[in-house]
Amino acid sequence: MPKLFMNYDVAIIGCGPAGLTCAIYATRYGLKTVVFEDPTNPSQLALAPQIENYPGFEGTGFELLNKMKEQAEKFGAEIKIEKVENVARDGELFTIKTDEGEYKAKAIVFATGSKHRKLGVEGEKEFIGRGVSYCAVCDGFFFKGKKVLVVGGGNTALVEAIYLHDLGCDVTIVHRRDEFRAEKALQDRVFEKGIKVIWNSVVERIEGKDRVERVVLRNVKMGEVFTVEVDGVFVAIGVEPNVELAKELGVELENGYIKVDRYQRTNVEGVFACGDCCNNPLKQVVTACGDGAIAGFSAYQFISRRKE
Amino acid sequence: MPKLFMNYDVAIIGCGPAGLTCAIYATRYGLKTVVFEDPTNPSQLALAPQIENYPGFEGTGFELLNKMKEQAEKFGAEIKIEKVENVARDGELFTIKTDEGEYKAKAIVFATGSKHRKLGVEGEKEFIGRGVSYCAVCDGFFFKGKKVLVVGGGNTALVEAIYLHDLGCDVTIVHRRDEFRAEKALQDRVFEKGIKVIWNSVVERIEGKDRVERVVLRNVKMGEVFTVEVDGVFVAIGVEPNVELAKELGVELENGYIKVDRYQRTNVEGVFACGDCCNNPLKQVVTACGDGAIAGFSAYQFISRRKE
Repeated sequence: MPKLFMNYDVAIIGCGPAGLTCAIYATRYGLKTVVFEDPTNPSQLALAPQIENYPGFEGTGFELLNKMKEQAEKFGAEIKIEKVENVARDGELFTIKTDEGEYKAKAIVFATGSKHRKLGVEGEKEFIGRGVSYCAVCDGFFFKGKKVLVVGGGNTALVEAIYLHDLGCDVTIVHRRDEFRAEKALQDRVFEKGIKVIWNSVVERIEGKDRVERVVLRNVKMGEVFTVEVDGVFVAIGVEPNVELAKELGVELENGYIKVDRYQRTNVEGVFACGDCCNNPLKQVVTACGDGAIAGFSAYQFISRRKE
Repeated sequence: MPKLFMNYDVAIIGCGPAGLTCAIYATRYGLKTVVFEDPTNPSQLALAPQIENYPGFEGTGFELLNKMKEQAEKFGAEIKIEKVENVARDGELFTIKTDEGEYKAKAIVFATGSKHRKLGVEGEKEFIGRGVSYCAVCDGFFFKGKKVLVVGGGNTALVEAIYLHDLGCDVTIVHRRDEFRAEKALQDRVFEKGIKVIWNSVVERIEGKDRVERVVLRNVKMGEVFTVEVDGVFVAIGVEPNVELAKELGVELENGYIKVDRYQRTNVEGVFACGDCCNNPLKQVVTACGDGAIAGFSAYQFISRRKE
């Protein structure tokens, strides 16, 4: 099969809210723009059952994502459902190799997002959006006054537990060890607020009929298996930003995330990043979109200055 | 009339996209939130005839703003149509004096926006949204292949002229002096691209029937009055961020804008800023919203840490 060869101004890798907003801006700045959507790694947004905190829109994450795609395509962005395998510098251009072909671009924007670490237990996948969540800020509101379990012991888990407690949830943290990894100040707050903790325990499986009803835990020291009745399970055992392609290109990381400045520029000239894969201060749909617009603007500035 | 006295966690000054997104986030973080909408200074967004580049929404600026208000109020934000006259520190709190009363808050968010400088000529106000624009990135798309005048000689005017030219508009710049204030590189680009310039001239009035059809100019050296037929007039004679209240509170500025870090924090503890009044790299609705979400998050962090 002959390989595809095509030239673009900007290639955006990732088709979530950051990548699509970047595409909206890049095309409106007149740039020939391609967006690569990894078929094996859909945007986290597509999974969100209900978006309430995105200004100007209410509906499912899937609907929001489709609306953004429609806008990007209307302005001329080409969305290709291809897995990017490699990005390399080639003189003044970059070469993007996908599972279907090869492309050239003057600028690269990484909008590769991140994935929440999964527990990998029975019932987890089945109940996503029906009691299992990976984001307290996204979904906590639906659990006001209800019983929830937060799984994890790092900063994120404790921040989410405090957030859910303050929101009016009845929160219990489950942690596999006998102490938290999280910073002291957060631990103090968890204890002061009287948030319950089940130590030395892991989730064995999540059970329910149409929604989560209970979680089966196992004490890793005693081996004892027991059940806790809950309405929700917040899994907060960490995220993994998708930074492999950027790393291969020599892009600098900060705490595992792509390091960008306020213009969404990385340390590599012509390479930008936006959304959950980068070290922005808050990981939300609207902040990813804000990042994306700036990355589009910066890519335009970079390309139009180089022309001179 | 007795003055109103009320206590809030966070007071947001300004009711545009930045302030409203901040309110959506602050309320969802459980903060008691008030938003002050200045009746004498409505959000620029309300004037935008058609929003196409905001991801997830298409419609008028007014509709988008109303949707955001609805969301903020749904989560419990109180929107008060009162002009804030003064913000002062009062121990651990801030006092906000409006034309109707007095309020206390633990944190302040400035989302006061900016206003485009107006030409102040006949026809300008009448044709806003019908040929007169203050934002090439917002409205340029509607003028592809058409004749437009850009008024101004600073960086913004030249950037807008280049942007419109690259988009396919037939651009003429009108400038009151015989040289540009803009940086050399921008001037070079304008000349290289062959963008026409009418020197030493000012706009006398803007004319047309339903839309802009022509502009009457006056040469300030010769006194000669002449007419140019155009479809659009982009006024780029500068913006004025609304920073007076922030300045009185001791907030540091940068190039006239409120200086914030990536967490939207100002130099004054407990005071945050977002949107067009601050030194963010791009002034767009979606970036204002991204800023607003981060300011809400940072206000929450500030207040919840202080409680300890």
